[in-house]
Amino acid sequence: MRKPVLAIVGATGAVGSVMRDVISRRDDVWGEIRLIASPRSAGRRLSIRGEEVVVRAISEDVFDGVDVAHFDLPDEVSAHWVPIAAARGAIVIDKSNSFRMDPQVPLVVPEANPEAVRDRPKGVIANANCTTLALIPSLAALHRQFGLRSMTVASYQAASGSGQEGFDTLYRQIDAVAGNPGLGTVPGDVRRLLGDRADDTFGAPLALNVVPKVGGWKADGWTSEELKVRNETRKILDIPDLAVSSTCVRVPVAQGHSQAVHATFATAVDAEAARKVLADAPGVVVVDDPENGRYPTPLDAAGTDETYIGRIRTSIDFPNSLDFFVVGDNLLKGAALNSAQIAELLLPEFR
Amino acid sequence: MRKPVLAIVGATGAVGSVMRDVISRRDDVWGEIRLIASPRSAGRRLSIRGEEVVVRAISEDVFDGVDVAHFDLPDEVSAHWVPIAAARGAIVIDKSNSFRMDPQVPLVVPEANPEAVRDRPKGVIANANCTTLALIPSLAALHRQFGLRSMTVASYQAASGSGQEGFDTLYRQIDAVAGNPGLGTVPGDVRRLLGDRADDTFGAPLALNVVPKVGGWKADGWTSEELKVRNETRKILDIPDLAVSSTCVRVPVAQGHSQAVHATFATAVDAEAARKVLADAPGVVVVDDPENGRYPTPLDAAGTDETYIGRIRTSIDFPNSLDFFVVGDNLLKGAALNSAQIAELLLPEFR
Repeated sequence: MRKPVLAIVGATGAVGSVMRDVISRRDDVWGEIRLIASPRSAGRRLSIRGEEVVVRAISEDVFDGVDVAHFDLPDEVSAHWVPIAAARGAIVIDKSNSFRMDPQVPLVVPEANPEAVRDRPKGVIANANCTTLALIPSLAALHRQFGLRSMTVASYQAASGSGQEGFDTLYRQIDAVAGNPGLGTVPGDVRRLLGDRADDTFGAPLALNVVPKVGGWKADGWTSEELKVRNETRKILDIPDLAVSSTCVRVPVAQGHSQAVHATFATAVDAEAARKVLADAPGVVVVDDPENGRYPTPLDAAGTDETYIGRIRTSIDFPNSLDFFVVGDNLLKGAALNSAQIAELLLPEFR
Repeated sequence: MRKPVLAIVGATGAVGSVMRDVISRRDDVWGEIRLIASPRSAGRRLSIRGEEVVVRAISEDVFDGVDVAHFDLPDEVSAHWVPIAAARGAIVIDKSNSFRMDPQVPLVVPEANPEAVRDRPKGVIANANCTTLALIPSLAALHRQFGLRSMTVASYQAASGSGQEGFDTLYRQIDAVAGNPGLGTVPGDVRRLLGDRADDTFGAPLALNVVPKVGGWKADGWTSEELKVRNETRKILDIPDLAVSSTCVRVPVAQGHSQAVHATFATAVDAEAARKVLADAPGVVVVDDPENGRYPTPLDAAGTDETYIGRIRTSIDFPNSLDFFVVGDNLLKGAALNSAQIAELLLPEFR
């Protein structure tokens, strides 16, 4: 068996860095690994699988001989380069939003629809949004058993969803507010302290705050992130008429996206039956013993591969419905890990 | 006209302190004001209306001659003392959970059911929970116009909902994590830094985290806070069969409770019609111009009297439904201010 050639495009970004870690600690199934980035990062040496690799500038030729390419680039940059890499013969796994809703591009979460990787007329497989990804492993298991009909989602999203700039801004703001007990109790106090750039990264200060804005503004007051949760869940679970309302909110957490979910099913469901189904669900850890202090939090999920579900309750007033809380690392299952898992689904093709 | 005698019971706590501020800056309609607290705080001098007042120890006699008494005490302490004060002739406005669901005690939010203050067979009026209170002014206006049938709520609750200890713990934890970029990305890193007491106040570290636990554990995995949102909203709006699911989550915010709400009505509704109704709603400020950076956040609401609503959207997949985001200061409208407003509704009785 030939070991396939892998490329990581966008290797120097926040997700690219996690991507290198993830591949380094998973089974060593890849042959050559090329690290690719913008020309300004070319020549840097980065570590993967314990070796230093020189970063190459993105170009048409750099994809020659590549079997599988992970793309983590801004939407418009992906839109340009993904077809080029695919035309050179690479199977592209793209993390941007540019191809997710393309009917000719499968949107894959291995716990939900692994078989979808096989049907890829454009040679492109899309990786879902980080918020959707934290939710899908639990939701797929519940859907298989009970038939998902509708859901309402409110998110608690980490700063690192905005990449390295998100990380840096959160830590800088926390450093600025530290040592000032009493802050956040009078209008304008934190903004004055943070200065002119207080709103820049997140649309409002994030330290001592939550901001009901993740992504860009779309029609009718919805954000791109809120529509992704709806549209991507419909596509991954193959429920075209799934009813979804989502409100996406940034919180002062470094890593780990959480979501409070209210879900209604076609058949009878209760918390106990849900816990039984979820106990066997791949990629899902049930953390649900609240009286003993066991419920999921982003701080406990950060840096881990699994998604976590807890606070599972039978809805009191809604038939066939559950309320629960899910958490997943937005850089691991929410990005790099899911992409790595998709790539591993392709390995039999190279045998 | 005689100026009625007011008592503030629990004058030394976090809400008691805000209560003194609120009364000091509102119309000066009260005669004598007595500050009352536990015997260990008796003798302290506290400021109200620009004067120093000596705190008196709670006792049966201290209520003689009191017309209206604000109570902010732990549930079980209120349960003991409220009937005593009422028996001495005071009209008690109680902020604890001990009387809210008593059918003989009205649960009053002046924007929603001011007339309910008149029917108080026990001489007691209950003040709603801080989470419910941030929501009611908007919800009451929408209900009057469109007929509320069901809602799903996810909360983003400030540390000060746990009183002075909540404030102190949050600031202490922020000071501890400051200067450590990279924290919150590996399991256990923040817990190790915070030490043995990391989980004490909130059930998990709150810095760089969110915690899906507010209040105590009740049957079937619900928290007391989640049930309050359901039961109190039903009582205040007089919708006994209102369907509610709520998930309450603590966030690293000092002051200001936020909520993402999905609400379904009996009649047709859309975002534009909702905004029109809310523009005239008392106690409500519509902050809803997202493309120009205008949406409510707790940092902007903290220290102010109004409740704020924004991100108002017509639900895409649910008929007669809206999604929106509300924020209110949990110590002002969520506690002290609402109580002060209730007391002012009683003034005509002393004319």
